[in-house]
Amino acid sequence: MTVRVGVIGTGMIGQDHIRRITEVIPGGRVAAVTDVDLERAGQVAAGLPGARVHPTGQDLIADPGVDAVLVTSWGATHEEYVLAAISAGKRVFCEKPLAPTAAGALRIVEAEMAAGRRLVQVGFMRRYDAGYNALKDALDAGQVGAPLVMHCAHRNPSVPPYGFTTDMIISDSAVHEMDLVRWLFDEEIAATSVLRPRPTSKAAEALQDPLIVLFEMASGILVDVEVFVNAGYGYDIRAEVVGEAGTLALADAGGATVSRQGQRSGRVPADWRERFGRAFDAEFTDWLRAVAAGTTTGPGCWDGYAAAVVTDRCLHALSTGERVTVPVPERPDFYAKVDE
Amino acid sequence: MTVRVGVIGTGMIGQDHIRRITEVIPGGRVAAVTDVDLERAGQVAAGLPGARVHPTGQDLIADPGVDAVLVTSWGATHEEYVLAAISAGKRVFCEKPLAPTAAGALRIVEAEMAAGRRLVQVGFMRRYDAGYNALKDALDAGQVGAPLVMHCAHRNPSVPPYGFTTDMIISDSAVHEMDLVRWLFDEEIAATSVLRPRPTSKAAEALQDPLIVLFEMASGILVDVEVFVNAGYGYDIRAEVVGEAGTLALADAGGATVSRQGQRSGRVPADWRERFGRAFDAEFTDWLRAVAAGTTTGPGCWDGYAAAVVTDRCLHALSTGERVTVPVPERPDFYAKVDE
Amino acid sequence: MTVRVGVIGTGMIGQDHIRRITEVIPGGRVAAVTDVDLERAGQVAAGLPGARVHPTGQDLIADPGVDAVLVTSWGATHEEYVLAAISAGKRVFCEKPLAPTAAGALRIVEAEMAAGRRLVQVGFMRRYDAGYNALKDALDAGQVGAPLVMHCAHRNPSVPPYGFTTDMIISDSAVHEMDLVRWLFDEEIAATSVLRPRPTSKAAEALQDPLIVLFEMASGILVDVEVFVNAGYGYDIRAEVVGEAGTLALADAGGATVSRQGQRSGRVPADWRERFGRAFDAEFTDWLRAVAAGTTTGPGCWDGYAAAVVTDRCLHALSTGERVTVPVPERPDFYAKVDE
Amino acid sequence: MTVRVGVIGTGMIGQDHIRRITEVIPGGRVAAVTDVDLERAGQVAAGLPGARVHPTGQDLIADPGVDAVLVTSWGATHEEYVLAAISAGKRVFCEKPLAPTAAGALRIVEAEMAAGRRLVQVGFMRRYDAGYNALKDALDAGQVGAPLVMHCAHRNPSVPPYGFTTDMIISDSAVHEMDLVRWLFDEEIAATSVLRPRPTSKAAEALQDPLIVLFEMASGILVDVEVFVNAGYGYDIRAEVVGEAGTLALADAGGATVSRQGQRSGRVPADWRERFGRAFDAEFTDWLRAVAAGTTTGPGCWDGYAAAVVTDRCLHALSTGERVTVPVPERPDFYAKVDE
Repeated sequence: MTVRVGVIGTGMIGQDHIRRITEVIPGGRVAAVTDVDLERAGQVAAGLPGARVHPTGQDLIADPGVDAVLVTSWGATHEEYVLAAISAGKRVFCEKPLAPTAAGALRIVEAEMAAGRRLVQVGFMRRYDAGYNALKDALDAGQVGAPLVMHCAHRNPSVPPYGFTTDMIISDSAVHEMDLVRWLFDEEIAATSVLRPRPTSKAAEALQDPLIVLFEMASGILVDVEVFVNAGYGYDIRAEVVGEAGTLALADAGGATVSRQGQRSGRVPADWRERFGRAFDAEFTDWLRAVAAGTTTGPGCWDGYAAAVVTDRCLHALSTGERVTVPVPERPDFYAKVDE
Repeated sequence: MTVRVGVIGTGMIGQDHIRRITEVIPGGRVAAVTDVDLERAGQVAAGLPGARVHPTGQDLIADPGVDAVLVTSWGATHEEYVLAAISAGKRVFCEKPLAPTAAGALRIVEAEMAAGRRLVQVGFMRRYDAGYNALKDALDAGQVGAPLVMHCAHRNPSVPPYGFTTDMIISDSAVHEMDLVRWLFDEEIAATSVLRPRPTSKAAEALQDPLIVLFEMASGILVDVEVFVNAGYGYDIRAEVVGEAGTLALADAGGATVSRQGQRSGRVPADWRERFGRAFDAEFTDWLRAVAAGTTTGPGCWDGYAAAVVTDRCLHALSTGERVTVPVPERPDFYAKVDE
Repeated sequence: MTVRVGVIGTGMIGQDHIRRITEVIPGGRVAAVTDVDLERAGQVAAGLPGARVHPTGQDLIADPGVDAVLVTSWGATHEEYVLAAISAGKRVFCEKPLAPTAAGALRIVEAEMAAGRRLVQVGFMRRYDAGYNALKDALDAGQVGAPLVMHCAHRNPSVPPYGFTTDMIISDSAVHEMDLVRWLFDEEIAATSVLRPRPTSKAAEALQDPLIVLFEMASGILVDVEVFVNAGYGYDIRAEVVGEAGTLALADAGGATVSRQGQRSGRVPADWRERFGRAFDAEFTDWLRAVAAGTTTGPGCWDGYAAAVVTDRCLHALSTGERVTVPVPERPDFYAKVDE
Repeated sequence: MTVRVGVIGTGMIGQDHIRRITEVIPGGRVAAVTDVDLERAGQVAAGLPGARVHPTGQDLIADPGVDAVLVTSWGATHEEYVLAAISAGKRVFCEKPLAPTAAGALRIVEAEMAAGRRLVQVGFMRRYDAGYNALKDALDAGQVGAPLVMHCAHRNPSVPPYGFTTDMIISDSAVHEMDLVRWLFDEEIAATSVLRPRPTSKAAEALQDPLIVLFEMASGILVDVEVFVNAGYGYDIRAEVVGEAGTLALADAGGATVSRQGQRSGRVPADWRERFGRAFDAEFTDWLRAVAAGTTTGPGCWDGYAAAVVTDRCLHALSTGERVTVPVPERPDFYAKVDE
């Protein structure tokens, strides 16, 4: 079965996923698109044989020729479309954030529970990265004993000089590590703090960049995340888990080692596409397989909700300078891990 | 367009490519299979909705429901099936070797030239490996100046204790480097020698393992290849190009770095699937795209023929202990590089 | 001139330095020793041709055959011996800590200033480590722009099950990073906090191990130090400076890379001797040269005092769980950096 | 006991060793110097308190104030001075080559045997390198099983445009690997060949650079050495031993890893001083200790002779293009390994 996907939002990330479904992975085709900019939606559809353009996301969701929905629109609109897809009984993949606020994410959780089956996957693609999976496998195999500390760095070469706020360093960047550590350690974040190092002079004036975000896991594991969105030199994602008997770290990717002019060098990825392209491929391959099989896989509503709760509290920690606890509710049985 | 592929040969490598076409990459589906063991072919077809089983390769090639042919049968049968596909005017992907002898490969070249268009791709998947492509890109960009020397190592953990001969170290293993260096340096191999180091005691008694195979390129670049098929510790493929201004080497792949018990360690791939899985994916994605577009891409008949000529001479060098020249004929205009 | 060194304290570290002066570096010989355990002092002296044994440190300092004094006794006795050496007008090398309290260190500073010339070097050997010097050189050369953040890890394989307290993780281990960051960034530590991750089960019950120690430099550079004294797997010292334009990290040391059993591995040092042996050699070579030349070099009283102030405040941070500011006084002109 | 060293030859390497004995290592002092350029000898002596200048090497050797002799003069004069030192019954350290020809080296061997005790150490400093020792330790510990193949690269950034001949690539550069592999595998070289890759355009016109030198050890281990004396990018010494169960390779040295401008880089040594400085230190420390103790250590006459025999044959292989056998005589009991 080829899954007929409807795409809401044909911007940069939407187009990248359309390319992925069309040219890179098997199991799906794009049957319909829409966008707040209908002209753009039309241009994208023109390159997709048989794809319809719908005037609204609701129309697209209602289209009987659409088996499953991909939401890659502006974050503030995610809740509305995901709720509509749940109402329509269609599986939906929603790029992060599931909703911009914890309250919005909770409404989706409640709707999905009311619908009685899990229909939503949230776009936390790091769970599909080979490096992080190697960490998790080694951790779960007990290679370094119980985890105690984790050091992360999340560095972007740059963000646009206008429109990117300090809050977004938390909500757009650190949110990936929020989900990552929940998945890696299989437990919730219990408290968070945000530290403000000397800011780079290369960022917009009002931007506090980098930040150090601390997460205290329920078991006491302490995670520090350097989030630096104008790091300049490349897109560099680092992680080291320190356990009782050793450590596990992401290794640099392969390619070529160049020895010239007194230096032996390897490449740092240029951007998230280069670093996480294969993770996105694996994520969508997995999603389309699950849709075709009528099952659910990957991070779901509960994970999106938990990330939203942590984001809220982390923003509070940023604004107050205080350590704040994170009140993640008990995971309902409905969201027990069986499907993952 | 979904390319309907007919697969001749449903052994280990055939099944791996069937899985690839069916589950990993887009653009194709397996429409028909055959095998010298028809029961096995039937079992494989049972897992492929809509796939027919043909009693012979010729029947499969003649099937109007087959757009393109994949030859993964025993090497000695390749020539016959490739010639039949050319006769039928169908595009065909043939795993290496194109033919077990240079004479056989030449017959295919002549048939394809007579047919007037390029229909054949040969399975030299290293041309699709990200690491080798990073080497080639850096080399072509002049990062290390003109190439002078190349060091390669080609290590398998083990080969079966029976049936794997010393000749096969050349024809089955070193053949990959034969094609690789022709592609990397865009020139022919002009001479070859084979050296016999102290053999491992871990191999079958009659096996001379490892070998050092030397290739002298037309421009004088000297390539040494250690081929060691019972290296024990892993599947380890190394390469370093030494240029006038620096060197380029394959880097180790990513994953996790583990620090424990006084060691900091990374993983060596376990086998060719782990090391070259993505290269195979890219190779078949490229082939199916080309088939759908009615074009040709990748290594073709001429490359298969050149590898067969080098293999012949290299086996001669092995048996005589002498340096022997390699008489690769001039590349016909028909095989100019435009299509690649 | 061969410097005649008197050694106060012939325990493990004292004996290691005696070996260094006698067998590894030029410029000195051990002329006299003493120890709280005179029998041990006698045994050590027996292996040193011409070395006298003195009943007390004061006698040793007064010995006209002693040109310079090395204090490697128990930390609580350092102040007394350093003050006596200053009184005697003799140059003295004191292992860290200069004094167990800031008040004691300040008395030494005042005595040295009253004596009118710098006589004291403190044993912060990391300033002599090739790796840290490579970081400092690259930093000072502007290779990564202004520093913003530094990540450190300081891991010992283990500490004795009895007698090693959580406070000592600060005063004995983290003290090295206190001096290091002051030297590296050439500025004072302005505030500190201590975080308590989930403790390892491999340590003594009362020990909170690991700790995360935070230093805020005067310019705002934020330093995080994971100090883990029962890390089990080796003696592992890591550091990464994050600047506006890139990062600088300590590289693993050389030796052999072993590929076996599916792993490619390098060695993690077994202990501080293996990791910092050459730094100690360089440190003492430098000290003996300076003594012979009648000059002063390396970290001195002011650095020992500053470290003591930070240690005091850091212990306060540990006990209260609060961020505390560090009131390092203005560096007197007497301790301007000219001598270093 | 401080060994009083007489130095014959105060050129670049002589001065470097004088600095080493005077400033870096313990146990010796330079008591006398001479040079073919007596003015230079005088200038060097002026910086060495108490050092005499002798008009000839023979005078220096006869000086009763000289305990041991260091020969760092022009290679063609080594034989004469070493023979004189043996006659005088004084221990002598001779930089490589022991003699420019095998016949000359044999005369020294015979003189030393006639003298009845081992007095000569030859300057093969790689035996003192930490990296090679890590390889040897791991090899001797059986970590990778029996050795079968070894790959080496010996790259200098450049040689002077005049005066450096292709023969010298063998006699001055590859000679280090000749001794190295004899020491590493504890067996003789049985045959050698020299291959001529495409030469770099960056070298003097007549220079065939790089070369690939092959050594076949007595047990069949095959060693390939790329010697490239105008490699441009740095001084890069590589080695990998391939055993039945794994491989052992020299690791890159430590220092700093710099991440900037899309690259993660480490430093390649600039020259032999940077790469092998510590090996020279260890070598001379060891020699002075042995002299003081009246014993012999390190590579001796036999090793110098064996290297001279291999050099002769290797030059023959270079000029003829043929594989040639190496007739190293049986090692006399006098040179059994006990002293090493």
